[in-house]
Amino acid sequence: MREIHPQDLEDIAVGAAILGTGGGGDPYIGKLLARGAIEVNGPVKMISLEELPDDAKVVTCGAMGAPTILIEKVPSGEEMLLALRHYEDVTGETVTALMPFEAGGLNSCLPIVLAAQTGLPLVDADGMGRAFPQLEMETFNVYGVKAAPVAVADERGNLAMVETESAAKAEFLARSLCIRLGGQVSIVNYPMDGATAKRVSVPATMSLAQDMGRVLREAKTEKKETLVALIEFLKTTHYGHAELLGSGKVSDIERKVENGWSVGVVTISPFDGSASYKIRIQNENLMLEREGQILAVVPDLICLLDIDTCEAIPTERLRYGQRIDILGIRVPEIMRTPEALAVFGPKAFGIEVDYSVLGGR
Amino acid sequence: MREIHPQDLEDIAVGAAILGTGGGGDPYIGKLLARGAIEVNGPVKMISLEELPDDAKVVTCGAMGAPTILIEKVPSGEEMLLALRHYEDVTGETVTALMPFEAGGLNSCLPIVLAAQTGLPLVDADGMGRAFPQLEMETFNVYGVKAAPVAVADERGNLAMVETESAAKAEFLARSLCIRLGGQVSIVNYPMDGATAKRVSVPATMSLAQDMGRVLREAKTEKKETLVALIEFLKTTHYGHAELLGSGKVSDIERKVENGWSVGVVTISPFDGSASYKIRIQNENLMLEREGQILAVVPDLICLLDIDTCEAIPTERLRYGQRIDILGIRVPEIMRTPEALAVFGPKAFGIEVDYSVLGGR
Repeated sequence: MREIHPQDLEDIAVGAAILGTGGGGDPYIGKLLARGAIEVNGPVKMISLEELPDDAKVVTCGAMGAPTILIEKVPSGEEMLLALRHYEDVTGETVTALMPFEAGGLNSCLPIVLAAQTGLPLVDADGMGRAFPQLEMETFNVYGVKAAPVAVADERGNLAMVETESAAKAEFLARSLCIRLGGQVSIVNYPMDGATAKRVSVPATMSLAQDMGRVLREAKTEKKETLVALIEFLKTTHYGHAELLGSGKVSDIERKVENGWSVGVVTISPFDGSASYKIRIQNENLMLEREGQILAVVPDLICLLDIDTCEAIPTERLRYGQRIDILGIRVPEIMRTPEALAVFGPKAFGIEVDYSVLGGR
Repeated sequence: MREIHPQDLEDIAVGAAILGTGGGGDPYIGKLLARGAIEVNGPVKMISLEELPDDAKVVTCGAMGAPTILIEKVPSGEEMLLALRHYEDVTGETVTALMPFEAGGLNSCLPIVLAAQTGLPLVDADGMGRAFPQLEMETFNVYGVKAAPVAVADERGNLAMVETESAAKAEFLARSLCIRLGGQVSIVNYPMDGATAKRVSVPATMSLAQDMGRVLREAKTEKKETLVALIEFLKTTHYGHAELLGSGKVSDIERKVENGWSVGVVTISPFDGSASYKIRIQNENLMLEREGQILAVVPDLICLLDIDTCEAIPTERLRYGQRIDILGIRVPEIMRTPEALAVFGPKAFGIEVDYSVLGGR
């Protein structure tokens, strides 16, 4: 068990922004909300999957929407509590533990807010090991947990529950409510017991985010090469491999909100004038290409980092002229099985290429 | 108390099609479903508002969607039961009486199906006195009843509940689910007690539909002028006034499905070559114009009747060349108050004209 104190949030937000691969919402907002909630309610208990009782009633939680909307329609932190209470009211169940459905971006921090508000323990795991744009793109779904019921809440107290067998349908229906509630809502979903959570979750992703933040902070203090330190650290984790895939300047951005997502293409031009990198985006960075060659593709992580600070730049904050290191991180084994690739491999995003694991194994 | 037997459904369907003013779905489908349900479960008890106990737990029910979709994606009759059971499961309440939210069109017959399936009494009243395209366009809402929770169900067992303060928001959110579930779903909503139902409902609209059907049937048997008989009958009811507004041939139809509704304009050209009638449609016939002059407008009923049979032609069955009598029917007093006109008067449909009561009073 770790306790999450306000000072831990700095590291978590930095690491979660990298795991966000551009999406999941800017964790800066989540960090502020989490700090406020911890200052009022005290530190949050974060437990590992091993520490989670088999009979625990776990739900996952976070925000749904387009990150470009999220930075204008900022969550208050109360919507998650509304969604949880609505879930409990409707199902008659009492939740005993919370888990992020997405450890990347803002959605790493929002479950901390809810854990502080409720006093419930937070499970150090998630279902994405990064950020993905759709509710069905969860190891929970890959390994047989139903996404529904999905409780939806907005900041005005509008509530809904969706009950459906298919996770993709749950996504489709909850997304339509999300769009009509202004493009950003809080949700509670994927109820499961502790024993199931141990089987279907990507472990230790919250602590990974925190450790990534810590490694960068320490490297800065010690005047070391931050990116080198981060890559070396990632090789020691269950993710196992990371590498610098390219560097350059943002020379073009196409970005729009479509069907409730931020979609587009960002172009990064190397400083030496050689061929540009193209990155395809749906909330998250999905595929990195150069001269028709695919350098990395989902589910592996494609992270756009500020070349000076090594901090991740989320999709909605990309601007012309930013100087970028493109970091690739391989996802853990649980996210690379054929079942997993069927749910969040390239073809799940309409990208007609086969997945090729980053680093070749 | 009346009992509804299979032979009564013929009259109800004919009358409800007229009250549908083009919308509410073709009652032919509802009639078949109701006949099947009554043959299996026995006749339905229809009670007046006066007979309804003050402490009854009433919900309203029916189908939501575009009529043009409804004739292809036909309800099975099971979705309503799913919606009702979901409503009861989620709220923990036991419903003791059913009411149509819309006595026009298909939605007059679907509550009969549910009443037969459950053995619950059907209240002889509704919230529209006709058909309207949107959930908030109900006297229930006008006079202070909350539309939510709204239970939504489709034929595949997909379920949702929407909880929100505003009836317009309930419409907006349920409509988004309706669209993503294929454009046609069953809903249960506007929960209220019997005492409230007496105050906020348009009374005796189901029996009015049945009586209109009977009047037409008897006039045909007796070789009388059917339209004259219908108009004379309507003058004796709480609707109080009806008149023939014009006749002609359908000479043009613009019709499309937009935002989950069937919208368009139908042109009817008189046989003598004089100026055409234009009827604006959003599921229902909203406004009748000729040479820039408004002859009738919502909430008054504009009914397109087959000139030979006096039967209503719903929006989705309008075809070039059909010979039409345009019948206007004034709505009852409860639907013409300033509060009511704010909710379903012309401006609620974006029609920037003032309501002028049909028949001048």
